[in-house]
Amino acid sequence: MKQLEYAFMAKLAIHIKEQLRKGVKKPYKTIIDVSFGDPHKAGVKPLTFARQVIAACTYPKLMNSDKLPLDAKQRAQWLLDRCPGQSVGSYTATAGIPETVHKISAFITRRDGGAPSDPKNIFITAGSQWALMNILNVLVNKQASPRTGVLTPAPGHDKAVLSIVGMGGETIPYYLTEEQGWALQVEELQRALDSAQGVCKPVALYVINPGNPAGHVQSRKSIQEVIRFVSEKRLFLLADEVYQDCVQGENTEFVSYKRVLNEMGPPFSETVELASFHSVSKSVMGECGLRCGYVELVNVDPAVMKHIFTLFSKGSCSPVLGQIALDVMINPPQPGDPSYTLYNQETQHIRDMLIQNAKRVYEVVNSLPGLSCQPVDGGAFAFPRVFLPPKAIKKAKDLGMEPDTFYSVRLLEEAGVFVRPGCGYKQKKDTYHIRFCIMTPRDMMDELLGRLTSFHRKFMMDFA
Amino acid sequence: MKQLEYAFMAKLAIHIKEQLRKGVKKPYKTIIDVSFGDPHKAGVKPLTFARQVIAACTYPKLMNSDKLPLDAKQRAQWLLDRCPGQSVGSYTATAGIPETVHKISAFITRRDGGAPSDPKNIFITAGSQWALMNILNVLVNKQASPRTGVLTPAPGHDKAVLSIVGMGGETIPYYLTEEQGWALQVEELQRALDSAQGVCKPVALYVINPGNPAGHVQSRKSIQEVIRFVSEKRLFLLADEVYQDCVQGENTEFVSYKRVLNEMGPPFSETVELASFHSVSKSVMGECGLRCGYVELVNVDPAVMKHIFTLFSKGSCSPVLGQIALDVMINPPQPGDPSYTLYNQETQHIRDMLIQNAKRVYEVVNSLPGLSCQPVDGGAFAFPRVFLPPKAIKKAKDLGMEPDTFYSVRLLEEAGVFVRPGCGYKQKKDTYHIRFCIMTPRDMMDELLGRLTSFHRKFMMDFA
Ligand SMILES: Cc1ncc(COP(=O)(O)O)c(C=O)c1O
Ligand SMILES: Cc1ncc(COP(=O)(O)O)c(C=O)c1O
Repeated sequence: MKQLEYAFMAKLAIHIKEQLRKGVKKPYKTIIDVSFGDPHKAGVKPLTFARQVIAACTYPKLMNSDKLPLDAKQRAQWLLDRCPGQSVGSYTATAGIPETVHKISAFITRRDGGAPSDPKNIFITAGSQWALMNILNVLVNKQASPRTGVLTPAPGHDKAVLSIVGMGGETIPYYLTEEQGWALQVEELQRALDSAQGVCKPVALYVINPGNPAGHVQSRKSIQEVIRFVSEKRLFLLADEVYQDCVQGENTEFVSYKRVLNEMGPPFSETVELASFHSVSKSVMGECGLRCGYVELVNVDPAVMKHIFTLFSKGSCSPVLGQIALDVMINPPQPGDPSYTLYNQETQHIRDMLIQNAKRVYEVVNSLPGLSCQPVDGGAFAFPRVFLPPKAIKKAKDLGMEPDTFYSVRLLEEAGVFVRPGCGYKQKKDTYHIRFCIMTPRDMMDELLGRLTSFHRKFMMDFA
Repeated sequence: MKQLEYAFMAKLAIHIKEQLRKGVKKPYKTIIDVSFGDPHKAGVKPLTFARQVIAACTYPKLMNSDKLPLDAKQRAQWLLDRCPGQSVGSYTATAGIPETVHKISAFITRRDGGAPSDPKNIFITAGSQWALMNILNVLVNKQASPRTGVLTPAPGHDKAVLSIVGMGGETIPYYLTEEQGWALQVEELQRALDSAQGVCKPVALYVINPGNPAGHVQSRKSIQEVIRFVSEKRLFLLADEVYQDCVQGENTEFVSYKRVLNEMGPPFSETVELASFHSVSKSVMGECGLRCGYVELVNVDPAVMKHIFTLFSKGSCSPVLGQIALDVMINPPQPGDPSYTLYNQETQHIRDMLIQNAKRVYEVVNSLPGLSCQPVDGGAFAFPRVFLPPKAIKKAKDLGMEPDTFYSVRLLEEAGVFVRPGCGYKQKKDTYHIRFCIMTPRDMMDELLGRLTSFHRKFMMDFA
């Protein structure tokens, strides 16, 4: 149903675009589409070095070109030498180019203050979504009665939820605490777990950190609590950490579940089953279309590992050009390399943009009566709350719409701003939100906030 | 078990390579690996035009380069204009770039003598294997008792079989008739169907045409018979046509299932449920590593279509650079275009190579006592039969090996030729085969046949 509402909005956006093309007069000239977490679509530029390496691997004659920097050509040659037949058109090993898998393992150890990582536990996959789905496929017993349950965050990225339900599992929502910056509280996990009694059998906990759509970043302490919780309840921990590169809150730091697990030592570090996901889609790289991510599995039972490996093998291997982007992401140019300065400038530019956008959104949204927003400490989305007037809620219900869909549809029609209504992500009863991507060029964000401000003021007056 | 034997051989190959690197003396300097259907790995060169377009899409600065032909740059620009944000790093629509989907539909109509094709029934996917798996996922009822059955060719590509079994389904092998060039006979389909009684509930028939590992190409008449059969038995028809571009037999022509279905008219053309698969991996393009294919669905129940679409949506979209390769494959340069001559030369070169290799294999293998080979009319593999001497069979059994694995291991150890034993593909009881890829440069094929000849002669003497 909520999917249908979104599909309806997407159709409406296409319809409006069509009208604009035909010259129909509107108070805006273009639609700002921030409904997706797709940085390039929203106008972010790809990282030059990554694209140069991919282009050279694809068309090796470019190795002779003086248009490409030496380190890009060297990296490309190094990678090609690791592809069977020296072609990106050959299948690689199922888990990915072995040397790249090793580099991921080294990257994890570096990132996690020396925590050991075994390349054998790492699989490169066609996007992190695909990895998550396959692991859920193993965890969710389709024949089980009662059904298999997975604790999922509310609000939370909808694709995981769809997968679980599609596989015949149950999702058990746990609510993040909005007033505390969408903090994850262990008492709420306990409440959710209790709520499953008699309904389903919980086997796993899914966390998104940094969050989507909630822009929180968990503290080390919060992660410790979660680890103790899953350890006690014997839940498999699914840590979706694809936004680890997007941290913009002051004094905020991304700490991985793997790192904390390792710091906590035995028995936790030796028993808690963990899958941690990362992706080239959601880093500052933003390469969603290349479809590549990886998962690291920790403490997973060898029999289960075998099963997961079999599932992964079925897709042959992940797209090789995506693997190359991943190789660059976890091993960017280093100081002294010809491409270092540019790479740094480009990534810094994106980080600055995120920091500035997060700040601007916070200021502007919180200055508007009837809207409020938690700090977007991490991730790529703002998820402000809309305090809809009773008349607006009534109007929506009369139209058979969720209230925040009604608000979002109006925002799209009247101001050409395409956001997603909060009802698609599960939210506390009688609270309403909108989600929009903040990974957009700053001028576009200013334009968006300007349009949102005028629209919102008028909307609140109309339904006062 | 048979998988294990193959894994053992793969390890052995790595071990031998290591030895060769260390300077250990062997009767050969390198291993010829024809165990995979991976053209680039086997030394086939990628098609220049495809790679140029992909490189230019990846790194659009190349649009200004005079190193790339105009039509490659124009195609790249055309494609970029159809990617959200003009970047291959954005997600596309789930089913693929809409204009490319439309072009696939036009390609099918052209190929199939005007048969109608609806773009809405076409999905671009991350490899054809992925599409097949998802459709099997819908067809195979995991909870059913008796289990869901799928008729699968023997010998036949093993991945489909693994998928079916992995999903809790049963495969019902039907045997191709080796003495008749691996022909598919409808009486054998009937026998297979009967054999399922009391064991499982058959719902689908999987055919591979042109074959893998059997190199047959079905005639129009054979296809008509199969269509009548599935129509009468109400089976879903899964037509794996990924080798449609590889037809090397004299007077042999690829005719698609879709075409014949359309030619047969009602009731067949309006009722038989068909999924037809194609891929950039297995055409003369050979781009396995890009992971892209498509499936066209015909006469599929709308409710089932919706289910399939949901499954496809879960992977977000297929790799965009693979989609671009697909766009080139189904719409290559035309006469008059700057790249036409080279494209033609390159594809013709590969086709000639296939024709020559198929001929040479047929001649050489059939000249050797104890080996025999059907014509390789299509596909990328030879699948000769080995008449193993009883002493060799006994020796193999003493070692706990399948007899053709024993032969293949010896071939690898003694001659450095890495083929796959027939036992991995299902074969008639007490018959033995080896499979090797013929999509290799001609000098390599000569070298392979030379090594095979010496090895085989010696082997037959040793076990006479
Ligand atoms: C939290 C989260 N995880 C995973 C994904 C999927 O990313 P990928 O492109 O790697 O499949 C998304 C995409 O939006 C996401 O928001
Ligand atoms: C008959 C057949 N179908 C499908 C595939 C899978 O191809 P893709 O790379 O498109 O997944 C193969 C690969 O070897 C094959 O032989």
